[in-house]
Amino acid sequence: MSKIKLADISTTAPKKLEKDKIKELTTQIRTELDELQNLLFAEHKHAILVVLQGMDASGKDGAIRSVMSTMNPEGVDVKAFKVPTQAELDHDFLWRVHQQVPSKGMIMVFNRSHYEDVLVQRVHKWVDDKTIQKRMSAINDFERLLTVHGNTTILKFYLHVSPEEQAIRLQERTSNPKKMWKYNKGDLVEAKLWKKYRKAYEDVFECCDEVPWIIVPADDNWYKEYVVAKTLRDTLLSLKMKYPALND
Amino acid sequence: MSKIKLADISTTAPKKLEKDKIKELTTQIRTELDELQNLLFAEHKHAILVVLQGMDASGKDGAIRSVMSTMNPEGVDVKAFKVPTQAELDHDFLWRVHQQVPSKGMIMVFNRSHYEDVLVQRVHKWVDDKTIQKRMSAINDFERLLTVHGNTTILKFYLHVSPEEQAIRLQERTSNPKKMWKYNKGDLVEAKLWKKYRKAYEDVFECCDEVPWIIVPADDNWYKEYVVAKTLRDTLLSLKMKYPALND
Repeated sequence: MSKIKLADISTTAPKKLEKDKIKELTTQIRTELDELQNLLFAEHKHAILVVLQGMDASGKDGAIRSVMSTMNPEGVDVKAFKVPTQAELDHDFLWRVHQQVPSKGMIMVFNRSHYEDVLVQRVHKWVDDKTIQKRMSAINDFERLLTVHGNTTILKFYLHVSPEEQAIRLQERTSNPKKMWKYNKGDLVEAKLWKKYRKAYEDVFECCDEVPWIIVPADDNWYKEYVVAKTLRDTLLSLKMKYPALND
Repeated sequence: MSKIKLADISTTAPKKLEKDKIKELTTQIRTELDELQNLLFAEHKHAILVVLQGMDASGKDGAIRSVMSTMNPEGVDVKAFKVPTQAELDHDFLWRVHQQVPSKGMIMVFNRSHYEDVLVQRVHKWVDDKTIQKRMSAINDFERLLTVHGNTTILKFYLHVSPEEQAIRLQERTSNPKKMWKYNKGDLVEAKLWKKYRKAYEDVFECCDEVPWIIVPADDNWYKEYVVAKTLRDTLLSLKMKYPALND
């Protein structure tokens, strides 16, 4: 079987890479991103949806802050999906998500996403497996809709941290005054469900493959930031965008 | 082939029916609808989406006015889809539609709908046939999403008028002071594309079959109103709804 096994995938940067050189590269890519995002906005033809998933403390917020912050916020939006409201629960699970997809010219970053509906809800057994299968199928349909009819390129990142690194980071939230605001008792409970989450993620990688997943070793922040920035840069370059000529 | 041929389907009421008796029945059904809609709202479990399609002057507005007006407007919404705005065009064609789908407890009526994107746009050749096929496939996915994950029952009505009856009605709009506001020069142009529309509708009936279509003979308003009201009533009855018990 070709199924992805997270346990077999490294959570750290490749040993041969030098941290300083990679950080320099990332700085350079950030400058390129600033220009490319301006071009995306000006051309007004493509949309970019970045989906960030990962366990608590896997560095989603950090990736956003580091990679997206050099671009013009007029063309970059971030949506964090929290516990659904009553009005959201009164609709299909993709209703609130569809409203937030990027329009042409925009980059939208989902900090967590529709994937929570096939992850947290599954791990806690709030919905049965048959419903999860149907949701996964609906997610594939949804991503195809955005890709084919919305001219949207979707980048789905899984930030891959080890349980050990996660434990260190969660611990830091109880001692570092600048991080205490992120502390949430519930995170420790979720951390104990690590194996179940890993299994749920592996199923997601296999079943929700309308758009491929990018698994990012995330124990080393400098490497994670590099991979996310580089992937976004390469994607924007591949669109072969052009500034529109003078509009008569 | 089992393909639906609109030319073979009557646009008038079955001859054996007596107009007065049917109108009495419709009045009775309206009273039932009022009660059933209240139950739908109270139970807060199911959603109803009524899609009304048909040529200009096929009686969509009349059907809404006649059938929906006895129900409590707090639980009934109508959305008329017009020419898309720039913000709507900057997203996939279902983006604006998904935002308007009913929440649990509600009846939403679409006066025209996402089907315009595979009808008017096709007839005028604003998009190629390959794109139309992909849109039809996306519509099936979308309706399955609403049905399976939104607990929504979708009723898709095609109001079937003859070209002769349509001509009479469009003509009336130029002479009856109460109908002049509906006059639109463009309707006469569209009416000339009758055969192309009919062909486009027949393809829709065949390809967008995730939810079946209900073809309503619509030359006789009294019969059209009866069929729409009866279908809605029977649908609500089939949900076997119950008033919730006292909530602790």
